[in-house]
Amino acid sequence: MSKPDQSDLIPVAGNGLLHRRLFLRTGLGAGAAMLVAGRVGAEPQRPPWMRTPGTGMGESGAPSPFEDHVVRAPVGSQPGTTGAGVSRTPLQHLDGIITPSRLHFERHHSGIPEIDPDRHRLVIHGLVDRPLSFDAETLDRYPQVSRIQFLECSGNSGALTAPEPVDGNCASIHGLISASEWGGVPLGVLLEEAGLKPEGKWVVAAGADAAAMSRSVPLEKILDDAIVALYQNGERLRPSNGYPMRLFLPGWEGNASVKWLRTLKVTDAPAMAKDETSKYSDLDADGQARLFTFPMGVKSVITSPSPGLALAGPGVYQISGVAWSGRGRIRSVEVSADGGVSWAEAALDEHVLSRCLTRFRAAWQWDGGPATLLSRAVDETGAVQPTRASAMAGRAPESFYHYNGMQAWAVNPEGASRNVYV
Amino acid sequence: MSKPDQSDLIPVAGNGLLHRRLFLRTGLGAGAAMLVAGRVGAEPQRPPWMRTPGTGMGESGAPSPFEDHVVRAPVGSQPGTTGAGVSRTPLQHLDGIITPSRLHFERHHSGIPEIDPDRHRLVIHGLVDRPLSFDAETLDRYPQVSRIQFLECSGNSGALTAPEPVDGNCASIHGLISASEWGGVPLGVLLEEAGLKPEGKWVVAAGADAAAMSRSVPLEKILDDAIVALYQNGERLRPSNGYPMRLFLPGWEGNASVKWLRTLKVTDAPAMAKDETSKYSDLDADGQARLFTFPMGVKSVITSPSPGLALAGPGVYQISGVAWSGRGRIRSVEVSADGGVSWAEAALDEHVLSRCLTRFRAAWQWDGGPATLLSRAVDETGAVQPTRASAMAGRAPESFYHYNGMQAWAVNPEGASRNVYV
Repeated sequence: MSKPDQSDLIPVAGNGLLHRRLFLRTGLGAGAAMLVAGRVGAEPQRPPWMRTPGTGMGESGAPSPFEDHVVRAPVGSQPGTTGAGVSRTPLQHLDGIITPSRLHFERHHSGIPEIDPDRHRLVIHGLVDRPLSFDAETLDRYPQVSRIQFLECSGNSGALTAPEPVDGNCASIHGLISASEWGGVPLGVLLEEAGLKPEGKWVVAAGADAAAMSRSVPLEKILDDAIVALYQNGERLRPSNGYPMRLFLPGWEGNASVKWLRTLKVTDAPAMAKDETSKYSDLDADGQARLFTFPMGVKSVITSPSPGLALAGPGVYQISGVAWSGRGRIRSVEVSADGGVSWAEAALDEHVLSRCLTRFRAAWQWDGGPATLLSRAVDETGAVQPTRASAMAGRAPESFYHYNGMQAWAVNPEGASRNVYV
Repeated sequence: MSKPDQSDLIPVAGNGLLHRRLFLRTGLGAGAAMLVAGRVGAEPQRPPWMRTPGTGMGESGAPSPFEDHVVRAPVGSQPGTTGAGVSRTPLQHLDGIITPSRLHFERHHSGIPEIDPDRHRLVIHGLVDRPLSFDAETLDRYPQVSRIQFLECSGNSGALTAPEPVDGNCASIHGLISASEWGGVPLGVLLEEAGLKPEGKWVVAAGADAAAMSRSVPLEKILDDAIVALYQNGERLRPSNGYPMRLFLPGWEGNASVKWLRTLKVTDAPAMAKDETSKYSDLDADGQARLFTFPMGVKSVITSPSPGLALAGPGVYQISGVAWSGRGRIRSVEVSADGGVSWAEAALDEHVLSRCLTRFRAAWQWDGGPATLLSRAVDETGAVQPTRASAMAGRAPESFYHYNGMQAWAVNPEGASRNVYV
């Protein structure tokens, strides 16, 4: 094999962006300029934890105490209520595409009910021949599917609609997105068993929380790919994600994937529930409100570097982030280190799944000067993530749902990043 | 849409196995014979947990207290030692293909060290031009990859080599396999930076546990697809899986993916360490021992029904299980309900990934009589999971590593399952 050299560090865009071939190869090195490791003379001295046996096997493996800063950021936002608010996934501390279930974002409207699964029923009624009742044990006997897909609150990234850039980080601005393996029963199977009447066009889903949170979903989506989810990342749903069962609508705004699913009523029209009229609707600048704007747009964000993660000094770094689209797979992601003047194609990790987070990476030789990092995703339908100006066009000032404009992080000479508009 | 009928319940093999088309469709029902739901008259009464707000948002979401039986089964097996033994993944309670990190199996040789990442170094030395030292923060600057893959102890399922069937379940017999998204730095990049000398043929990996557990790995594998793993299922590795870094060798026996990775020494020959000579080697009936038999064979197990999960009475059930191969993707899985006389092709869930668990499912109409369930996997190389007789042929009586014969579960008229040989 050849000795390390600079030949792999091929500049492809302004301000230090390198060719993604660094990420597309194995078994061939990255060149001496990647040398951020320290040279040593011999085998290292044994650390204290090698001098005594460690702890034994346990029923459950917990994260390291040295990682106890990796938690969600809970915010109870509605005055005078309990259990109404959000907690956000700490994207800046994560990698890959799976979100650990303990760190999946939350958005609750009246807190998390503690449900005894033996006493919980899902009832399908309304415009059906036979109203039916299911418990979790019964549902386990039905044909099931599992898929790795994202769930995103339609309010995610809405902080970027503020007139001036907020002082935020990946979690506080973009942390209302997570991706999991969701497993459960396709709803088409259950609705057919109940016997759909021809006049049924919508399904109103309601939860077993104290808010009885409800949303109307077009029957077409329900029959296409909706599931009653029972499992998340291999285990039963956790209470904060709908235990013992939730609706899951791939690619659609999270609020419609009703947690603690209790009733599905087939109707001929939407219910015009609170969370599809006064909330989770899009107000245009001309005063018109758009309802039922379900699919989430194509979007991406650089998670490292990002606010709170300081660069150690000039040198080569991995830029890493996630991209997603409610309409299918990510086709490509580009990154810029000069505020959008020039762009480099990012490498995508192996699993590029439909309606899922896709991990992208780029190599960057930071010269220690100011830099503005941006990412821009394109999905398989050809939809391109918009600039902020484009994402704001036609939007009423107070409208913050479904914002998918590009995120810009400004890196200063100290290596710190902050949210900026370009 | 047509009314539910029996037309989808197509028998394809003996003792009630139905055609997998039930699992391959959405939006069209499964027919009235799938009716295990209860009929109801109207919307149900509100349960107590809807009458008061639930708990608020938290920093971390825990599993439901109603699921506290879903834990690993720890066994400290070596007399006179602490921290030497295993804990097993409760496969019978899981679904999909991801194993939650808290339930990933463990096999430790001297317990779990509690490592301060700021004081941990990985040193690459031996037959290299420049010995190098890396900490986790440095490694984060290198090109990384993430892939969803299984890890299996080569002793997994070895209980089936016993002369008589043991009284076990999915966890106790097959629970030394788990699948995760593993993220980290391809080792080829780091070794090239250190500068490989031409006489280097093996890499001896050693951990920072008190046993300094070590294994020799052919350089070819290291340069092909080995990584220094830093992330598991999106977050930093947990201490029981090697925090802050471990070796990960896709498809190879788990013991070689050394946890708490501390040194990688490039050598011209294997070290003949304890765990590749006296242990983790395969003894043949003729007295010959085979060393360095790394790839795990093609294998499958039905996780439901299985011992501990009782059937509720005659009717339609979903048979579900996992299949995997250390040599690539699963091509197909067949199931039998009559002890291997006849076979039905199972449906595979959407994600069929290389060297990963693949979830398979089949529909089964149980008549309430005795039944013997089996599964048989085929991988993309054409390798077929062997019968028990074939898997035992040529094996010394005390040899239990790398057992991949078929698992048979006998279902009795009460709906209970047990391990049997067929």
